[in-house]
Amino acid sequence: MEEISVGIDIGGTNTAIGVVNKNGDTLKEKSVNTAQYADVRKYVEVVHHAIQEALNELPEKVDLKGIGIGAPNGNYYRGTVEMAPNLKWKGIVPLAELFGEYYDVPVIVTNDANAAAIGEMMFGGAQGMNNFVVITLGTGLGSGIVVNGDVVYGHDGFAGELGHVIVVPGGRKCGCGRLGCLETYVSAPGITRSAFEILARTNQESEFSEVKFDDLNSKMISEAAQRGDLVAKEAFDFTGKILGHALADTVATLSPEAIFLFGGLSKAGDLIYKPTKQYMEEKMLAVFKDKVQILYSDLNERNGAILGAAALIWKEKKEENI
Amino acid sequence: MEEISVGIDIGGTNTAIGVVNKNGDTLKEKSVNTAQYADVRKYVEVVHHAIQEALNELPEKVDLKGIGIGAPNGNYYRGTVEMAPNLKWKGIVPLAELFGEYYDVPVIVTNDANAAAIGEMMFGGAQGMNNFVVITLGTGLGSGIVVNGDVVYGHDGFAGELGHVIVVPGGRKCGCGRLGCLETYVSAPGITRSAFEILARTNQESEFSEVKFDDLNSKMISEAAQRGDLVAKEAFDFTGKILGHALADTVATLSPEAIFLFGGLSKAGDLIYKPTKQYMEEKMLAVFKDKVQILYSDLNERNGAILGAAALIWKEKKEENI
Repeated sequence: MEEISVGIDIGGTNTAIGVVNKNGDTLKEKSVNTAQYADVRKYVEVVHHAIQEALNELPEKVDLKGIGIGAPNGNYYRGTVEMAPNLKWKGIVPLAELFGEYYDVPVIVTNDANAAAIGEMMFGGAQGMNNFVVITLGTGLGSGIVVNGDVVYGHDGFAGELGHVIVVPGGRKCGCGRLGCLETYVSAPGITRSAFEILARTNQESEFSEVKFDDLNSKMISEAAQRGDLVAKEAFDFTGKILGHALADTVATLSPEAIFLFGGLSKAGDLIYKPTKQYMEEKMLAVFKDKVQILYSDLNERNGAILGAAALIWKEKKEENI
Repeated sequence: MEEISVGIDIGGTNTAIGVVNKNGDTLKEKSVNTAQYADVRKYVEVVHHAIQEALNELPEKVDLKGIGIGAPNGNYYRGTVEMAPNLKWKGIVPLAELFGEYYDVPVIVTNDANAAAIGEMMFGGAQGMNNFVVITLGTGLGSGIVVNGDVVYGHDGFAGELGHVIVVPGGRKCGCGRLGCLETYVSAPGITRSAFEILARTNQESEFSEVKFDDLNSKMISEAAQRGDLVAKEAFDFTGKILGHALADTVATLSPEAIFLFGGLSKAGDLIYKPTKQYMEEKMLAVFKDKVQILYSDLNERNGAILGAAALIWKEKKEENI
């Protein structure tokens, strides 16, 4: 029987579920509408049925070794999701325990960015690396930090909140209630805020002058930049500048071998990579100059979030066997 | 025979050498003038003689298990000191190899802040902690970061340069050639720069109006603050603000259990602790609020730098036995 793990990627809107083997192949996928279930017990029941369905649809019987869950504010130590602003479940949700009512195998919870880092280490471009950082660029900015081959969970399981490093004191209002956090500049909504700021400041013509604020998204900015729209190009340059400078500080702290960009905004390719690299090197302490790679996540074109969640199980099993 | 290790703390002016047992007792100390020896081979020879002298002066024969060296720009992986601006030896100095010509025991090199962190973990207030940070406040700001029980050396052995995180873009000129590094504000020279800046800005009376810039030092500022000098008090408040805000970012990244302050400036006690803690909490992401202790290093009142260097050997031996 093939050994498999189930990876669950919980987003505010949608939950993606995948059955993944040891090579990182996704054998079957399902999805569940997260937002539909305000009652987390009902949600877990529905996800359980989706997992059973997926397993039953496989051509052969498999050996389930565990369930890995990537979720916003997921806590590795406690198997919980805690005070997640984008989820309907309030307070501290004992997710591992709730799944444990249906399954006798290990259930491991962590946040989505840590899961992405483990996915990168097990199946992606970070194979063989012991010190690296994964930056997830979506509606927020998440980070998964690996030091000496292990994810940095910190004392309480919540380490890796690079999105909430303050890069502009007194700057943009953040969802966390503070001002000037990195993710208010470097994320999908962040770049749209920048585009409108630039539009307001410049007298450059731009296709965005005919777009409503609520309609603009990062994909449109990426496409406009490719067509040569100067506001869109400046928005990417500015985003890369803020990210690059922040990463120079991260390198001074952690000295990683590489920094991987993952998620929606990273798909803009060179538009975001080039300025990020350029401005990171510009502010880099001499000893780290030209040593740290900025890499496109291998998992971007695969279902990386599911793979990362499933990889949680494979990483633990690998360590048990050492 | 008692097992001992030798700890060597290399500073730009002075080298402190200590014979340390497993309990962290310093059995004998020696010192060598670092600046006197531009030739590193001659320096190593002189230090070797000082070690022999120390060992011969002990009442009983001992069993030397290794030599630990804390040095500016010390590289753990390579046993080298590389491009250290405050030392006379240029380029890459293979210090472990040079001592290896005299000794058959392990010689381990790291930077002074990492040595301090290991000392704190083995003999100080961090015993039993797996995630913490030591900030050394002297002529510069160094940091030793411990994650999952191990020092963060990073990919190249140079991680932990928190002193060179940029906290004020376009700010004070740093010895590293860049602008606005943390250590230009938070260090012994940093606080004297702040005191003069405040003196120039305010119309407050201060005893510093009669002191030359070159004569002012952080101890004088500490004493003046205790006497109620408002410029001195503001200088500490400002220093704590810059440090506290930087530490809030460090916590968001690493989520340590505690942050230890070590070295000259930390001896100012509450003058630096109170504002650092207050401003750190002010900028802290909600999930980390009131979780992270700012602690006075236990090793401040002992010869912490020697202990830390010697502890390098005890830590490795402990890991071998696991």
